[in-house]
Amino acid sequence: MGIVVQKFGGTSVGDVARIHKVADRIAETARQGHQCVIVVSAMGKSTDELVHLANEISSHPEPREMDMLLATGEQVSIALLTMALKERGLKARSMTGWQAGIQTDHVHGKARVTKVRTEAVLECLNQGEVVVVAGFQGISPENEITTLGRGGSDTTAVVLAAALGADCCEIYTDVTGVFTADPRVVPAARKMDEITYEEMLELAHLGAGVLHPRSVETALHHQVRLMVRSSFVDEPGTWVKGEKTMENELNVRGIAHDLDVARIKVLGLPNRENMLSQLFGLIGGANINVDIIVQSEHDQKEIDVAFSVQESEKDATIELLESAKDSLGYAQLISESGLAKVSAVGMGMMTKPGVAAKMFATLSEAGIRVKMVSTSEIKISCVVNREVALEAVRRLHTAFGLDQTEAKEPVLQGVAKES
Amino acid sequence: MGIVVQKFGGTSVGDVARIHKVADRIAETARQGHQCVIVVSAMGKSTDELVHLANEISSHPEPREMDMLLATGEQVSIALLTMALKERGLKARSMTGWQAGIQTDHVHGKARVTKVRTEAVLECLNQGEVVVVAGFQGISPENEITTLGRGGSDTTAVVLAAALGADCCEIYTDVTGVFTADPRVVPAARKMDEITYEEMLELAHLGAGVLHPRSVETALHHQVRLMVRSSFVDEPGTWVKGEKTMENELNVRGIAHDLDVARIKVLGLPNRENMLSQLFGLIGGANINVDIIVQSEHDQKEIDVAFSVQESEKDATIELLESAKDSLGYAQLISESGLAKVSAVGMGMMTKPGVAAKMFATLSEAGIRVKMVSTSEIKISCVVNREVALEAVRRLHTAFGLDQTEAKEPVLQGVAKES
Repeated sequence: MGIVVQKFGGTSVGDVARIHKVADRIAETARQGHQCVIVVSAMGKSTDELVHLANEISSHPEPREMDMLLATGEQVSIALLTMALKERGLKARSMTGWQAGIQTDHVHGKARVTKVRTEAVLECLNQGEVVVVAGFQGISPENEITTLGRGGSDTTAVVLAAALGADCCEIYTDVTGVFTADPRVVPAARKMDEITYEEMLELAHLGAGVLHPRSVETALHHQVRLMVRSSFVDEPGTWVKGEKTMENELNVRGIAHDLDVARIKVLGLPNRENMLSQLFGLIGGANINVDIIVQSEHDQKEIDVAFSVQESEKDATIELLESAKDSLGYAQLISESGLAKVSAVGMGMMTKPGVAAKMFATLSEAGIRVKMVSTSEIKISCVVNREVALEAVRRLHTAFGLDQTEAKEPVLQGVAKES
Repeated sequence: MGIVVQKFGGTSVGDVARIHKVADRIAETARQGHQCVIVVSAMGKSTDELVHLANEISSHPEPREMDMLLATGEQVSIALLTMALKERGLKARSMTGWQAGIQTDHVHGKARVTKVRTEAVLECLNQGEVVVVAGFQGISPENEITTLGRGGSDTTAVVLAAALGADCCEIYTDVTGVFTADPRVVPAARKMDEITYEEMLELAHLGAGVLHPRSVETALHHQVRLMVRSSFVDEPGTWVKGEKTMENELNVRGIAHDLDVARIKVLGLPNRENMLSQLFGLIGGANINVDIIVQSEHDQKEIDVAFSVQESEKDATIELLESAKDSLGYAQLISESGLAKVSAVGMGMMTKPGVAAKMFATLSEAGIRVKMVSTSEIKISCVVNREVALEAVRRLHTAFGLDQTEAKEPVLQGVAKES
């Protein structure tokens, strides 16, 4: 049997009792003869506590020092989990990111993995040891400790699985799999048995929150078979892989939502060829992620551009644009908070006619106004007012035939996010 | 101006407010033009909390994993202190033990420093940065994170000062210096302006607790000038250095005590040549530190050996000796708890007649029975019952003329220990 990478998030190792449970599960996998590489996040709220400490010291703590600080959270987890494994008579060894050969660029706070040197991990595996690796962290060419930012631990698990040629990468979390919609919002939501990388990527981007898009992108790129499953309930989860073998007659596979959306409109921009690249170059340079972009042309001389950002980045974006008013040369800036994005996702969806029409009709019947629209090969997203967003999710879930025939209680309530 | 190494213990960086205070002090030193290398311990009780977590997971956590766990404590401190320094506009950079080139052997939990690779620290100093190094930790030849055990942060500071050729190494702690006795016990105790390494070594070994003996030994070996001073009160502390220039007419310089003593007697051991080496080889092999050893010969065939250990190591020592009863061949084992050691320390003391006599007379007048005696060039130690130990300290302090002429309140109450 081959190598299995298992990743446990912060909730799964949130306290001593849960660490023991996770250790039991790993012991079971190891006793089946698999070579186990375990990736863990920091315990429960410990990262939040460290961030709080840093903010008490400094209003703008330097990213390098934040990485130095935050990397301790996962280091605590790996040591404790390894102790728990050894209590069970397993051979085990913890490794920090740098010890496990996770090499990154030098962008503190959101480093990208550039290479995985697998020698140390392989040597331990060959000695029959379970290797417990600190997620979320790596080392830069300058020997600096870096962290990978949001979704970092998932990414660590996927790059390790890719580099080690693992059979699969299991992402253990506090939900039992990927659902057709957030079961807290849509009680009739169903757990999917499998889903393609591309669909998962849209769902991840769209706020389903089970997996971070970065880890899915990486899994797609290296064709790592992922399984999303529960740390607490022993039942099969959802496979995320290249091709789905079932349910491919369905067009829309899931309804996702993201309640953290703000819109910014830049009106009366000069209609220059390089205008959009100048505008979004400026915003991207400040590391602000823009989601939906809508451009409209007045006439030969002027254009309007509207785009959505996370609510928390709205003020910084406005500030940035105001400071660049002269160079951009726009006439007016309008921002709007309290929005949400609702999306229908499904492979090959756009080749079937009528999906967009059905979506707009459903929302319209409910009296929900669509403020922005964005489409891709496999999804349609609508920005709506936040207070009607969940109602929109429920109506779309029903309209696209995703409701369970017999509505049963979802096993777990939450689609929570683990780093 | 040259390099100054400053070490701040766990109490000194115990919370955010204290970290800011420490940062102020460092900023002052840096602005005077010194190149600053700062060594810090884990915050306050954080190491205890980590140990507690580990003990919840496992009754015998593996030393390697304990090191992985405990090393996070100092890593948190260096990140926070560096943020505080940057808040003050200083250029600063934190470094873990391995980043600062602290190389050790591979004895987890009590590693010894084998080499300091100063390149990284020097490079930062040359760029005008304050370098903040995690105390208590290093890296083994196998790239494993190690910790240095008790007194580890002091040792980190001293080896860095030695390797960097620093002008001095300042140990900031919660007392204002080295006193002639514990000021909590002897209100008339005086702070010494200076003291030799050898005297400090005896005082450190004898439980004065301000500096760990390892760090003093290392300072002596490399002739690093140490200053013990307060983190909280801005006044000169006590120099620990090669030669003292004052007070050298005094014989006894201080009275130390250690309240954590147990005695074990091994009776009726065969009088073999290799008996003592066998006995203490066994005990040393189990990493139990023996302090005073008294041997008495019955006749040609049998010897008795009594020795003192820390109270906490008594049970393990007894267990060990019982398991080796056959190979050692002794007749009986007796142990006694609740003891203490009281010591008079002073350079050249033993060349003056009458010091020992005065010590015994003083104790005898107070009705205090001496259970064991040990002498060296610069100290006399007596093991007595714990309940009379502090009375013994006060009487000896007076008898050897150490009391202040005008008894003034000591500035700080405690002679506490910082790792």
